[in-house]
Amino acid sequence: MEGKNLKILIVGLGVIGGSYAMALKAAGYNEVYGIDIDLETLEKAKALGIIKEGYSKGKDIIKDMDLIVISLYPRLVKDFILENREYFKAGSLITDVAGVKELFVQEILDILPEDVDFIFGHPMAGREKKGIDYASKEVFKDANYLITLTEKNKKENIELLEKIIYDLGFKNIKYVSPSYHDKMIGFTSQLPHAIAVALINSDEEGRDTGKFIGDSYRDLTRIANINEDLWSELFFENKENLLEAINNFLNELNKIKSALLNDDEKLLKELFIKSSRRREKL
Amino acid sequence: MEGKNLKILIVGLGVIGGSYAMALKAAGYNEVYGIDIDLETLEKAKALGIIKEGYSKGKDIIKDMDLIVISLYPRLVKDFILENREYFKAGSLITDVAGVKELFVQEILDILPEDVDFIFGHPMAGREKKGIDYASKEVFKDANYLITLTEKNKKENIELLEKIIYDLGFKNIKYVSPSYHDKMIGFTSQLPHAIAVALINSDEEGRDTGKFIGDSYRDLTRIANINEDLWSELFFENKENLLEAINNFLNELNKIKSALLNDDEKLLKELFIKSSRRREKL
Repeated sequence: MEGKNLKILIVGLGVIGGSYAMALKAAGYNEVYGIDIDLETLEKAKALGIIKEGYSKGKDIIKDMDLIVISLYPRLVKDFILENREYFKAGSLITDVAGVKELFVQEILDILPEDVDFIFGHPMAGREKKGIDYASKEVFKDANYLITLTEKNKKENIELLEKIIYDLGFKNIKYVSPSYHDKMIGFTSQLPHAIAVALINSDEEGRDTGKFIGDSYRDLTRIANINEDLWSELFFENKENLLEAINNFLNELNKIKSALLNDDEKLLKELFIKSSRRREKL
Repeated sequence: MEGKNLKILIVGLGVIGGSYAMALKAAGYNEVYGIDIDLETLEKAKALGIIKEGYSKGKDIIKDMDLIVISLYPRLVKDFILENREYFKAGSLITDVAGVKELFVQEILDILPEDVDFIFGHPMAGREKKGIDYASKEVFKDANYLITLTEKNKKENIELLEKIIYDLGFKNIKYVSPSYHDKMIGFTSQLPHAIAVALINSDEEGRDTGKFIGDSYRDLTRIANINEDLWSELFFENKENLLEAINNFLNELNKIKSALLNDDEKLLKELFIKSSRRREKL
């Protein structure tokens, strides 16, 4: 199972799954198939030439697949595996794109067939819109990819997935434990989404805010346009880490508030100097 | 005083003043002069061809100028006018770029010579870096411009400034009172800066955060690289409005926190739907 003839199945051709199919095509992989419950999505994907064939059920196609990329909401991944557990090809590899890992990994390992390898992955790329119409291989360019290994993962499969990830355009692959993944993602991804939502929701109703904005407000609220089903799942699956990140953030924002209330210009400048130094290092 | 031969003086050729000079040149204005305390900056501006001549003092040049754009930190604007009050040309126009207005406007009006018109302005565009090296006419393209009028402003001067603002590339001009300006800017500009600073400062020391970030964290922290002198001035000059905006934001973030703590998926989704609708409308 090597080279560009590897048989790859994308499950869920939404904005992320669709982007995988596009990036795989651009990288020269020519045996890419798709599963989606939406027939129009399958037709679009076929018309774009990014899948060879589309299916609404796994039964007919899964048995031939070397690699399956499950690009579904986290809660649906387990269902997909349970429904199709008798069809997976022995020795095949599965990976996912879920933005939470700790609870998720254990749930999947509990039901995974013995002869299938599952390497957990999280592409740190996405768009605020959903659906194949917003898919784009560009979002993967130079982005970060997180991989969570388990004891059962085979060396050759890890190498295969690494190669594909770089072929897709990603720049960095970082190996992390499920718990560290969730802790960091609570801070770098979920907290910014919570902040963006709170920022735009804190506007007073009926103001002509659009006339008063520059890039800063635009940048900070872009992700306030959020898929409520996916992100409520992600927030609740990582509740403890996210709450900790929110509390740390509140603590810092309260320092700024105190500096203002106490006319403490020295403290305010120190906070600005610290943030500038950290942002430049990033 | 009309047309592209209007004699224009930019006071302070930093990132904003430098951008004005560049955009004026691109728009065909060919009588643009500059004042800066930094000789190297004046040399650079002259070498770029964006000013005809540069000066370190106002005395020699101000008396010939039709329009003066003061692009200094707010606290320095008053000093500049006081130092040069005997040199301004009768009937000339001054404007500024200060990001706060209420206290500022009154201070300036108290010391302004009788025969000079001052129209207060705020280009909603900027960059996180300072200095002429980061100046760019592109930042003005399609941006918003806020103007704060006083009773004394002459109609022909308002029309002149409007024309120049559109020539610079701005898309919208909005006329606002000083108090509404400061209330809105506290929300759309200062609050996002406070949030960005608090977000990056809330990271735990020593983590390899760079490997865990996607566009969301990158976007939300861009403005955490902040000019501490300018922004502490802006924050303190608009303290009450900023504190109100911070409190409204905290209130919304606490709703998200409550939804998490109470496992209230319905509330969390409602907040996401509200923020998505608002962002799409923007």
